[in-house]
Amino acid sequence: MLKDYDFDDFENEYSDFKTKELGERLSRAQRLIGNLDIPVLIIVDGWESSGKGYVIKDLVKELNPKHFKVSVFETPTEEERTRPFLCRFWNKTPRYGDIAIYDRSFYFKLFNDLSVTDKELEKHIQDISSIEKQLLDDKAIIIKFFLHQKENTQQKRIDELKEDEYRSFMISERDEDQYDHYNDYLEHFDKILEKSDFTFSKWHIVSSEDKEAASDKVLGMSIDLIHEGIDRILGMKNGGLRRQMRDYVPKEKPLSQLNLNLKLDDDEYDKLKDELQMEAQELAFELYTKGIPTVLVFEGVDAAGKGGAIERLTREMDPRGYEVVTISAPSQLERAHHYLWRFYQNFPKEGDMKIFDRSWYGRVMVERVEGLADMEEWNRAYREINEMEKHLSNAGTLVLKFFIYIDKKEQLDRFKDRETEPDKVYKLTDEDWRNREKWDEHIEAMNEMLVRTDTDHAPWVIVEGQQKKYARIKVLKTFIEQARKKIDQLDS
Amino acid sequence: MLKDYDFDDFENEYSDFKTKELGERLSRAQRLIGNLDIPVLIIVDGWESSGKGYVIKDLVKELNPKHFKVSVFETPTEEERTRPFLCRFWNKTPRYGDIAIYDRSFYFKLFNDLSVTDKELEKHIQDISSIEKQLLDDKAIIIKFFLHQKENTQQKRIDELKEDEYRSFMISERDEDQYDHYNDYLEHFDKILEKSDFTFSKWHIVSSEDKEAASDKVLGMSIDLIHEGIDRILGMKNGGLRRQMRDYVPKEKPLSQLNLNLKLDDDEYDKLKDELQMEAQELAFELYTKGIPTVLVFEGVDAAGKGGAIERLTREMDPRGYEVVTISAPSQLERAHHYLWRFYQNFPKEGDMKIFDRSWYGRVMVERVEGLADMEEWNRAYREINEMEKHLSNAGTLVLKFFIYIDKKEQLDRFKDRETEPDKVYKLTDEDWRNREKWDEHIEAMNEMLVRTDTDHAPWVIVEGQQKKYARIKVLKTFIEQARKKIDQLDS
Repeated sequence: MLKDYDFDDFENEYSDFKTKELGERLSRAQRLIGNLDIPVLIIVDGWESSGKGYVIKDLVKELNPKHFKVSVFETPTEEERTRPFLCRFWNKTPRYGDIAIYDRSFYFKLFNDLSVTDKELEKHIQDISSIEKQLLDDKAIIIKFFLHQKENTQQKRIDELKEDEYRSFMISERDEDQYDHYNDYLEHFDKILEKSDFTFSKWHIVSSEDKEAASDKVLGMSIDLIHEGIDRILGMKNGGLRRQMRDYVPKEKPLSQLNLNLKLDDDEYDKLKDELQMEAQELAFELYTKGIPTVLVFEGVDAAGKGGAIERLTREMDPRGYEVVTISAPSQLERAHHYLWRFYQNFPKEGDMKIFDRSWYGRVMVERVEGLADMEEWNRAYREINEMEKHLSNAGTLVLKFFIYIDKKEQLDRFKDRETEPDKVYKLTDEDWRNREKWDEHIEAMNEMLVRTDTDHAPWVIVEGQQKKYARIKVLKTFIEQARKKIDQLDS
Repeated sequence: MLKDYDFDDFENEYSDFKTKELGERLSRAQRLIGNLDIPVLIIVDGWESSGKGYVIKDLVKELNPKHFKVSVFETPTEEERTRPFLCRFWNKTPRYGDIAIYDRSFYFKLFNDLSVTDKELEKHIQDISSIEKQLLDDKAIIIKFFLHQKENTQQKRIDELKEDEYRSFMISERDEDQYDHYNDYLEHFDKILEKSDFTFSKWHIVSSEDKEAASDKVLGMSIDLIHEGIDRILGMKNGGLRRQMRDYVPKEKPLSQLNLNLKLDDDEYDKLKDELQMEAQELAFELYTKGIPTVLVFEGVDAAGKGGAIERLTREMDPRGYEVVTISAPSQLERAHHYLWRFYQNFPKEGDMKIFDRSWYGRVMVERVEGLADMEEWNRAYREINEMEKHLSNAGTLVLKFFIYIDKKEQLDRFKDRETEPDKVYKLTDEDWRNREKWDEHIEAMNEMLVRTDTDHAPWVIVEGQQKKYARIKVLKTFIEQARKKIDQLDS
């Protein structure tokens, strides 16, 4: 894409317009996407010193500052380096109706790593394609620009910067490196650009030989591409029904194959519990010292005993190493983003453990059953969730998901208990009773979820919850077993 | 406090209880504060290797993991170092009804800096006293423990750690330093402990010669102190009325002294605007290169033209350097914290500029007028806000606050304009009309605020807004003048 780029053929069909005029048209487009609640992400990436800052400045000049945000992605900080690499980009995705402009982007690491292996490249591009695809499916507009310039132009610009006493500090190692190895980078960029020129999200290569022309071109194309995007999205919304293809529904019903008579007697339980809690503590410490992040998910039918299982699991663990994240209905800010956005804020850094009491699986359970997500949305969510968990796993995270099940009768007994015991009554809500009325629909959704999101990198562990003691021991044992496996893999 | 500490006299009045029993009593206390929505902050600070981890583990063992959170404060990261030091602590303050446990605390920097000057110490302690006081006034319980041990005990513990192959990596520079200079640290700690042994928030020195005894003591005291705290807070809530002393209300009414006829003609405006915008851009760049963080606050009566003034101010600035933060009603999560909490999440790091479109001043304006904060709360807020801005200023931040005023008739004209212009109609809400009905009360609150929070470190600039052009130029000019002053101060 870059190698055969003809700089002389650069056509700026927007050259008749004044920059200010283009800016005002973009500002009108901003009001339009604001009214339509469509989020827009504009990526301005490219060579060092190719004028990204210049272009971005013109992009936003006429915009309403309340509804755009420019994010600069530099070499990740200590903190950012210890978390899955997409987290910091997810964090800055636009709110519905707003424009986010990225100075550099999720391609940062790839662009700057000449020695990336093909395998790593593949994995990385897959992660990136997942964020782009997920945002697009969520009715976002993504526009990717790459600013391109000739070798001597780049060298001239860096030389000029060096001589500018106020701006010379802005020269980075990356400038120096690209200055010395233009052709290596050219080839490297080309490879990445080709691999990430997705049919659903193309690159736009813009010559920045003349910064003003580049700027007008980026402005003009942004306006056009936003309008194109709006057409696509309104088309999705209106003609959406026809395209809503329901995936094949698996026949398997894991929840109907459980042996709910599994039990432990009290002595056995007391003995096992103490031993296993000490072992779990040791493994948690090992995960910590080895820098392995851990994500544990707890799901289950209401009153299945998630809270109690978490308490028994963490009992002997060092509380500085784990955190329980309780997930309930999303806040207003969270609702103004992709449904996975809020979880990306919460993934653990190296060595930390996050325990989710309910999770992103709400999308394919309660949101499905209650119609809070439409069929197209929850049907697509299985893939999205698998991708997200794959990304965690690519970043070295131990991901383990527990689903605790009790039958309908047992649930009723526990609800009644909760009603009468003053210490527990706060645990029972109207929602619990409402969910119970739709028991069969919930079970259907749960079965499908358990089959479609049970992956090697993030397996489901179905826990027979009829007897609490049995369930708690199974959770402890499974954690120990899987943590050990993870540690052994790393050691070997 | 440490020097004359008699280790032999250490009395553990909780020694008759089993640790588990104490843990369960703390867990009952947790339910109680949960029901009462009281936030509890327990600080466990002390010597290196004095058993903080051991104590904290026992503290939380029987607690409900959904409602406590342990935060470990280590040497601040790159990112943390570039923001006002209290931000990371504010961030981790407990939600109403939850327990936060700090392993180390806001005393971190002071404890570890033997060479701190008296002046720095004074400033730092003042900032710390403000966070403690503000949380306490917000009906929180704060419990501060300092774990104390003898020189030879500490040395023995560090030696043991060194020999433990799994744990030796945990030895920090601070361990080594305290090992070598026990007596210097003893004296240093004593000085800080004495200065921060506030009447409203005392230190509890606990011998950790025997870790189990220390742990029981911390557990037992936490239970007792939480109950004491509950009594204090319920007393505040019930007997509150009597104590609500209204501060002296200043006679000055800055808003009635304005000359609203100030105007610029169009030519003058166009010429000035372009010049000043370029100048503002240059100064923003200088603030950035010099690493000076900037906080700009925009307040004013409804329809005074805050948004337009912000747009004109930032027009030529590099959008990568500033962010506009629009403040509206707090979210559920924000409402579950001290009202200043959400702002501490948003303060700029070195070189960045945050522009607040509305701000924490809502507390003493709309929340006061609408009764969302009671008299005691908003009356206290003036001091709290001054303290917060002082903290920003202590961290080197340029704080500048603009208040734009128009009179009642002009507001009506603008509301009517908004009603009829399709592009502007979204800007006019029912709330605007409601506020207008209480015009006099709002003006009264605004006048008091402008007098009581106009400080050297964070001055108010009252802007005559009757003519938009005049207001915009005044904002630009003032920013330029104050930014230059700040830069000159730093240079000299």
